[in-house]
Amino acid sequence: MENLEKSLKNFLSNITPPDKQAMDIARKRQESLAKPPKSLGELEEISVKLAGITGHVHNKINKKRLLVFAADNGVVEEGVAATPQSVTMVQTINIARGKTGAGIICRHFGVEISVTDVGVKAQINDAQVNKQKVSMGTKNIYHEAAMTRDDTLKAIFVGYNEVKKAKQDGVDIIGVGEMGIGNTTTSSAILSVLTDSPVEKVTGKGGGLTDAAFAKKIEVIKHAIAINCPDKNDPFDVISKVGGLDIAAMTGAYIAAAEQKIPAVIDGFISIVAALCAVRLCPIVKEYLFASHQSFEIGYDICVKALSLSPFLALNMRLGEGSGCPFAFEVISAACAIINNMATFEEANINDDYLCEIRKGDKFSVSAKKEKKEKN
Amino acid sequence: MENLEKSLKNFLSNITPPDKQAMDIARKRQESLAKPPKSLGELEEISVKLAGITGHVHNKINKKRLLVFAADNGVVEEGVAATPQSVTMVQTINIARGKTGAGIICRHFGVEISVTDVGVKAQINDAQVNKQKVSMGTKNIYHEAAMTRDDTLKAIFVGYNEVKKAKQDGVDIIGVGEMGIGNTTTSSAILSVLTDSPVEKVTGKGGGLTDAAFAKKIEVIKHAIAINCPDKNDPFDVISKVGGLDIAAMTGAYIAAAEQKIPAVIDGFISIVAALCAVRLCPIVKEYLFASHQSFEIGYDICVKALSLSPFLALNMRLGEGSGCPFAFEVISAACAIINNMATFEEANINDDYLCEIRKGDKFSVSAKKEKKEKN
Repeated sequence: MENLEKSLKNFLSNITPPDKQAMDIARKRQESLAKPPKSLGELEEISVKLAGITGHVHNKINKKRLLVFAADNGVVEEGVAATPQSVTMVQTINIARGKTGAGIICRHFGVEISVTDVGVKAQINDAQVNKQKVSMGTKNIYHEAAMTRDDTLKAIFVGYNEVKKAKQDGVDIIGVGEMGIGNTTTSSAILSVLTDSPVEKVTGKGGGLTDAAFAKKIEVIKHAIAINCPDKNDPFDVISKVGGLDIAAMTGAYIAAAEQKIPAVIDGFISIVAALCAVRLCPIVKEYLFASHQSFEIGYDICVKALSLSPFLALNMRLGEGSGCPFAFEVISAACAIINNMATFEEANINDDYLCEIRKGDKFSVSAKKEKKEKN
Repeated sequence: MENLEKSLKNFLSNITPPDKQAMDIARKRQESLAKPPKSLGELEEISVKLAGITGHVHNKINKKRLLVFAADNGVVEEGVAATPQSVTMVQTINIARGKTGAGIICRHFGVEISVTDVGVKAQINDAQVNKQKVSMGTKNIYHEAAMTRDDTLKAIFVGYNEVKKAKQDGVDIIGVGEMGIGNTTTSSAILSVLTDSPVEKVTGKGGGLTDAAFAKKIEVIKHAIAINCPDKNDPFDVISKVGGLDIAAMTGAYIAAAEQKIPAVIDGFISIVAALCAVRLCPIVKEYLFASHQSFEIGYDICVKALSLSPFLALNMRLGEGSGCPFAFEVISAACAIINNMATFEEANINDDYLCEIRKGDKFSVSAKKEKKEKN
C-alpha cells in the first residue's frame, strides 16, 4: 500500500498548470470574433479554459463519456436515507443498462456511460458494470471511520484508472457521477469539515427525507465528525473517516483528469464535494474542471463558491448519477463551435452590393479602438 | 388598418389555456418514473408544460427554428448605442448567412434560422433575408413616438405570420431573437413603463457603452417616457411610443405561438421584454413560453420575475440574435427524452438473478406510500 501512496504522490506532482500560451491565443481569437466584447460570456471563457487544458486553441467534443462510481455507505444503518440500501445495487445495474435518468439523457446526447462498482454491498454480476469493488461498502461513520486509508487509496486509483482508460480510448471530455444510497450524508460531512461550515448549512434532505429523518441526519453527521476527528488539512483523512468509496473514486477521477489533461465536468452535490477534495489535494486540478448545473442540494452552493466555479445550468436537478454532465457537454461543445467557426471582424465585413447603403466610416465594429485598428 | 386591429383582437381571443388534462397525465407519468420525486427538477416541469401546449404527453423536438426580427431605432441619433446603426443591416445579412454567433450555434445544434427585416434602415437585397419591412426604422423616441399605432400593428403581424408559417412547416419549437442597434434602449423604456420600475434599475450598458454614454442613455430613456406619455395599461401604446418594430414583431410572434400552440423560447433582454408585452396583452401567452438563459443585462432579471419564469442557463451571454435559444431547445429536447423513454418504478425493478441479494421488502422505491402501492 505504501507503493500506492507513493504512486499517488507521483501523480499529484505530475500535474502541471494549464497551457498559458494556448489560453492567450484563444483569448485573442475571442476578441477578434465579430461580436461585442465578452458578449458570449461563459462560452468565451470555456474556450480559453479548454485551450489551457489541451494546449490547442481549436478543440472538439466528439467522444463524451460519463463515469459513474457506485458504492454503499454503512451510515445508512442510522436511517439517514429515504431509500433502502439495496437500491444502490439495483440502480447501479439500471444505470449500466441505460434505464435510469442519466442513462436516458446520455443516450439522447450521444454520451457513453461507464459504471464502476467501487464498493456496492452486493455481488454484481451484470456484464455492463465495471467490477472494481474495494470492499462491500463502508463502515458506519456514526461509530467508526468509513474505511482504512488503504481502501481510500485503492478507491482513488479506481477512479484514476477509469480516466486514464478514457484518455486512451480517445474520449474528449468526461463527466463524473455517482450512485450510492447515503452519500449526501457523507458528502455533507466532508464539506462541513473541509470548509469549516456548520453541518446545518451544508446538509439537505437528499432523496426526500421527512423532517424527523432530516434532523436525525444532521445529528448523525455531527456525531460522525466528533468521534472520528478528521483532519481538515488532510483530505485523505477526511474521505477515509467520514467519506465513502464513491467519493474517493471520484476524487481520483478528477486528479487523473488534470494529470491526463482531459476536461472533467462536475455533476451535482456529491460530485462537487469530490472535486473539492481533489482541488484540496492539488489546487491546479481546478483548472481542469467545469461545473455543469446548480444542484438543488443546499451544500452545492457553498462548495461551488469554494471552488470559484460557475455552473452553466440551473435546472433544480438533484438526481445524481452524473445526470447534469451531458447538458454541460452540449454547452462546451457549442463553445468549441464558436471559436472554431465564427467569423472575425474582418471576415464579417460584407464587401458586396449590400454595403453601399452604409454611411461612410460606419465600419462594423464595437469600440473606437477596434474601429481605429480596422481602418485600412 | 381597422381590419388589422380587429384581426389581432380576434387572434387574442382565440388563445386558449393549455390542456390541463394532458398536463395531469404528464405529471402522473413523471411521478411514476424511477427516480426520487421531483429529482429531475425543471426537466419534469418542462414535460408537463409541453403537454399543456401540444395536448400530448409524448412530444418531440426535432424541427427547431430561430426567428430573428431585425429593425432600426431612430433613438440611436442620441448616441445611446456603442455600435453604428449600419451594423443592424450588416449583421442582419450575416445572421441570415449563418456567420454570426447565433448562426454558428444554430448550425451546431441543427436549428433553422429565419431572419426577417421588419424595419432595417437600409435596402436589403440578400435572398436569405425575409423582406417584410414596415418602415425604414422608427422615429427618434427622444423627440416623438417611435411609430404609428398602425405600423406597430403591421409589425406585430409580421411576427405573427412568421410563427404561423413555422407551424405550417412542421416546426416543433421556435426561438425568438432580434437584431437592432439601439434596442436595449427601447426595451428598457418599455420595461420601465410596464413594470413601474425606475429607469436606472432596468437599464444596462448594452453592447459596451462608456460611463458617460450610459448616463446619457438613462437620461434619453427618461426623457422619451416623459414626452411620449405611454399608457402603461396599453402595451400597444407603450410599444408604439417608446418601443421598436423588432419588439412589436417579437410580441406578435409570442402571441402567435400561444394561438398556434407551439412552444416559444425567449432569448435575452429584448426578447423577454417583448414576451412581457405579449403576456400583458394576453396573460395566457405565458403558458406557452420558456426562458432560455439569464442574460447579463440588468433589466432581464426584473422582467423574468415579472413573468414568473426560470431561465435554464446561466452563461452570462448578452449577444442577442436569439443566441441563447438553441441551448434551451437542447434542454427541452432532453426533457422529452426523459418522459418518453425513462423506466417507471415497475419497469425498473430488476426481476432476475441480481435481485436475490436484496433484503426482503427492500423494493426499489422512494416513499412509504409508493412502497405500499407497489407491494404485490
